[in-house]
Amino acid sequence: MTQGKPDPIRPTDDEARVLARSLLDNARFAALGVLDPDTGAPMVTRIALARGPDGAPLTLISDLSAHTRALRADPRASLLVGEPGPRGDPLTHPRLTLQGRVAFVDRAGPDHGGLRRTYLDQNPKAQLYIDFADFTLVRLDIAEAHLNGGFGKAYRLTAADLS
Amino acid sequence: MTQGKPDPIRPTDDEARVLARSLLDNARFAALGVLDPDTGAPMVTRIALARGPDGAPLTLISDLSAHTRALRADPRASLLVGEPGPRGDPLTHPRLTLQGRVAFVDRAGPDHGGLRRTYLDQNPKAQLYIDFADFTLVRLDIAEAHLNGGFGKAYRLTAADLS
Repeated sequence: MTQGKPDPIRPTDDEARVLARSLLDNARFAALGVLDPDTGAPMVTRIALARGPDGAPLTLISDLSAHTRALRADPRASLLVGEPGPRGDPLTHPRLTLQGRVAFVDRAGPDHGGLRRTYLDQNPKAQLYIDFADFTLVRLDIAEAHLNGGFGKAYRLTAADLS
Repeated sequence: MTQGKPDPIRPTDDEARVLARSLLDNARFAALGVLDPDTGAPMVTRIALARGPDGAPLTLISDLSAHTRALRADPRASLLVGEPGPRGDPLTHPRLTLQGRVAFVDRAGPDHGGLRRTYLDQNPKAQLYIDFADFTLVRLDIAEAHLNGGFGKAYRLTAADLS
């Protein structure tokens, strides 16, 4: 029975946009959701994160990882950012879910050099492996986003709200 | 070209089992991956976590959340636990991916009282809302698990390895 339930989604306002951008700007890593290519079931793994020059999330993944095989089969992906601290109810901490599609950045393409520098500026330790043949830069093109600012504070956002 | 690549999965040993159990035992929250019921795309959200008396992950979700609607449509789910600290390369931190199916715990069923107490022992702040009509305890039945202990340390585990 849903009758009488309030709509849990609030109208998006500037406070929600600022919080969502801040969660994304401050995320050094994310949980990545992909579809298991063998079963279609969801699979969640960890990735490191940067923001590209246009604001799109950028990551660096290895061909040895299950998520890379999954994304080559189906580019639909979701990211979760916003980490609870060690204390308190983790559900009171704000977090942001992104949904969209990834695009593999062609190492020989015109964008690669700039994105590589952007990624390394934000993840200097990746210098150790970013040029390995197994590693590929990947961009997430955001289709929609869901901000949960804590109990009763849910918002639906667009890519434009986050850029 | 995969020729010449080493198999990235190591044989599961006791060190891997101990690390995986420790990641699960110490997790107060997890990233939950589900299938968006409208599109079949992956969606990752945050949940609070406990371990049930049999070791199975246990969470408490609200009917107002998108993940609850998704899980009622398709119970396949994935969890990611193991949080990087604020410094260093987040990919060197160990993490555990679980895949399986959720089972909703019937509030009128014989297991509910015990699972409710177990959940509250580990998440005392949930006392504020665990008895709200919108909230449901959910158990994850693990089909398989993937431990990433840092670069080059990948293992495939069974539910028995984690119990």
